[in-house]
Amino acid sequence: MNQTQPSALFDTPLVHGGDWAGYSEEYGGAPLDFSANVSPLGVPDGVKKAMIAATETADRYPDPLCRSLVRKLAKAEGMREDQVLCGNGAADLIFRAVLARKPKKALLLSPTFSEYEAALNTVGCEIEYFPLKEENGFAVTEDILDHIDPHMDMVFLCEPNNPTGICTSYDLLGQILRRCYACKTVLMLDECFRDFLDDPKAYSFKPYLSLFPNVVILKAFTKLYALAGIRLGYAICCDPIFLNQMRKAGQPWAVSSLAQAAGEAALDETEYVSTLQKMVQTERPWLMGALRQLGMKVIPGEANYLLFYCETPLIAPLRERGILLRSCGNYMGLNENWYRTAVRTHKDNIRLIETLEEVIR
Amino acid sequence: MNQTQPSALFDTPLVHGGDWAGYSEEYGGAPLDFSANVSPLGVPDGVKKAMIAATETADRYPDPLCRSLVRKLAKAEGMREDQVLCGNGAADLIFRAVLARKPKKALLLSPTFSEYEAALNTVGCEIEYFPLKEENGFAVTEDILDHIDPHMDMVFLCEPNNPTGICTSYDLLGQILRRCYACKTVLMLDECFRDFLDDPKAYSFKPYLSLFPNVVILKAFTKLYALAGIRLGYAICCDPIFLNQMRKAGQPWAVSSLAQAAGEAALDETEYVSTLQKMVQTERPWLMGALRQLGMKVIPGEANYLLFYCETPLIAPLRERGILLRSCGNYMGLNENWYRTAVRTHKDNIRLIETLEEVIR
Repeated sequence: MNQTQPSALFDTPLVHGGDWAGYSEEYGGAPLDFSANVSPLGVPDGVKKAMIAATETADRYPDPLCRSLVRKLAKAEGMREDQVLCGNGAADLIFRAVLARKPKKALLLSPTFSEYEAALNTVGCEIEYFPLKEENGFAVTEDILDHIDPHMDMVFLCEPNNPTGICTSYDLLGQILRRCYACKTVLMLDECFRDFLDDPKAYSFKPYLSLFPNVVILKAFTKLYALAGIRLGYAICCDPIFLNQMRKAGQPWAVSSLAQAAGEAALDETEYVSTLQKMVQTERPWLMGALRQLGMKVIPGEANYLLFYCETPLIAPLRERGILLRSCGNYMGLNENWYRTAVRTHKDNIRLIETLEEVIR
Repeated sequence: MNQTQPSALFDTPLVHGGDWAGYSEEYGGAPLDFSANVSPLGVPDGVKKAMIAATETADRYPDPLCRSLVRKLAKAEGMREDQVLCGNGAADLIFRAVLARKPKKALLLSPTFSEYEAALNTVGCEIEYFPLKEENGFAVTEDILDHIDPHMDMVFLCEPNNPTGICTSYDLLGQILRRCYACKTVLMLDECFRDFLDDPKAYSFKPYLSLFPNVVILKAFTKLYALAGIRLGYAICCDPIFLNQMRKAGQPWAVSSLAQAAGEAALDETEYVSTLQKMVQTERPWLMGALRQLGMKVIPGEANYLLFYCETPLIAPLRERGILLRSCGNYMGLNENWYRTAVRTHKDNIRLIETLEEVIR
């Protein structure tokens, strides 16, 4: 080990959006945050109440098996209880799956969510990248099948992909799934943003999970219920042995008791979810149109965020005006002219567009 | 991967104490919990208020650097900010340290806290055990130095040890520390229960940390502030490079925003802590005496729990009477005749003693 000079900690570059604390230290106050893809409707009241009630018993260890939450989740997802594993956010489950499988070789899309790579790096895995090309609209193409052979231990797909918002066609997804099965490759299917699609049910492979125990679907409460600060995600998989290995690839008390209480309450918030889904369905095309009218090139994503291209630097001038936007300069395959914006409420979206207009004119 | 029959999840044997959920499913209601070593004074009011306030902004991602909390912790601990790393409970930091170092060989006390071994198993580490013998009062002896050579990558010491409550002598700890330094061995010094010693400051090696960058001290909010359900611990170490490797050995948002708010508020609870410490200092000898009067053999531990020996089976009959006790049957080097009890309030301790009396007579 080494000793170094005073540091470094607070200059650590943060690769993700949603850095409220950094903004507040610089400017004071709270920004309007388009940099994280979280529901703009705030924590549902029922969830807030459940968390407040849970503070009374926060002195107890959380249930390491999340029994009550798993029971409710399994029912909601139509799975058996031993097919559901909760984690400290979906990110926790990504690291656990990697540590449980210890892949020697893995396949990632490029660009995609950066925590897959971060997790694979902890086990020294060789990573192959499947480049998503702008000329293909950043969609996964059939060429990906050539990358999946018996030496490929793990494949990560994000559906819809982050930061593009693009889904792989259902047919091709089926081919990938079968190829992975034939090659004994673990397919990590990150569906954290699937519920924002216009027709979420049409896209999930959940009905086929029982045929493909090599597939792990990841989901989160973060985005759909505005619970990013609470940390709660889950994995569903028809191989309880692998789920159990994931459980052992980390501490037993990963999910706090407040997160467990929040998750149970969230599952009752059907009205909140349908309001949010309708809002995203209306606002996404509106925001896409408005960005295009400003001369931006916008990728027609299907999630609660949009990827767009603009040659004017936007991050600093928007930040000075109280708005956080996600630069995509650190995504492999993109550069600093690419930005990702969340889809928020109409009022918020108008403010973004008006501010962008001011900046680029 | 394999498919198996309906399972298994809810029969998973839990190796730790504090299983309220399991008790409630069987009996309904809440047990009197002597099986987890948590402050019996409940969540401090100031901490509860801070958490409730934090639910308002739980839709935001937590600060991945825990900037505000780290600043306050560093000040409280007299460390630089880059020498402090927060985690999702101390257990999270145990797994991170192991994954960051990937030891080939590690030394554990036997018996000791089981999560060290669980973490080492995730990287396929060979584990050597240093048996603590009853005839030595379960204390670490100088023989341990023979186990530490340049092939020993990592040593875990729990001071005071769990479940014995015994501390290593300050002199011997100094020798272990210097031997580890000479052998480039990482010494993980788990001080999660140190604040319950009669003179906590007399025992910590924190003042020497700057000379020994191979030492990582682990601390938790769990026990001292009754925050087991919230998940918050931290590591202090004078090697910021290793701390940074630990930071990367897991997701960036491990510490929820509620835990960060709770931690900041907890650091102001000096009166709560001194009330708790005084209570433990009074109740520990009282409980030890009362257990001995019942004929139990009690190890004179110095923490907020006591290890004792009794040939009458206690777990089931106490459970039926609404009391949880920790069986030590699954600790290496102990058997099912050994029990660990938390030190609680006088009223609670009386109830334990009266119930034990009823059971063994």
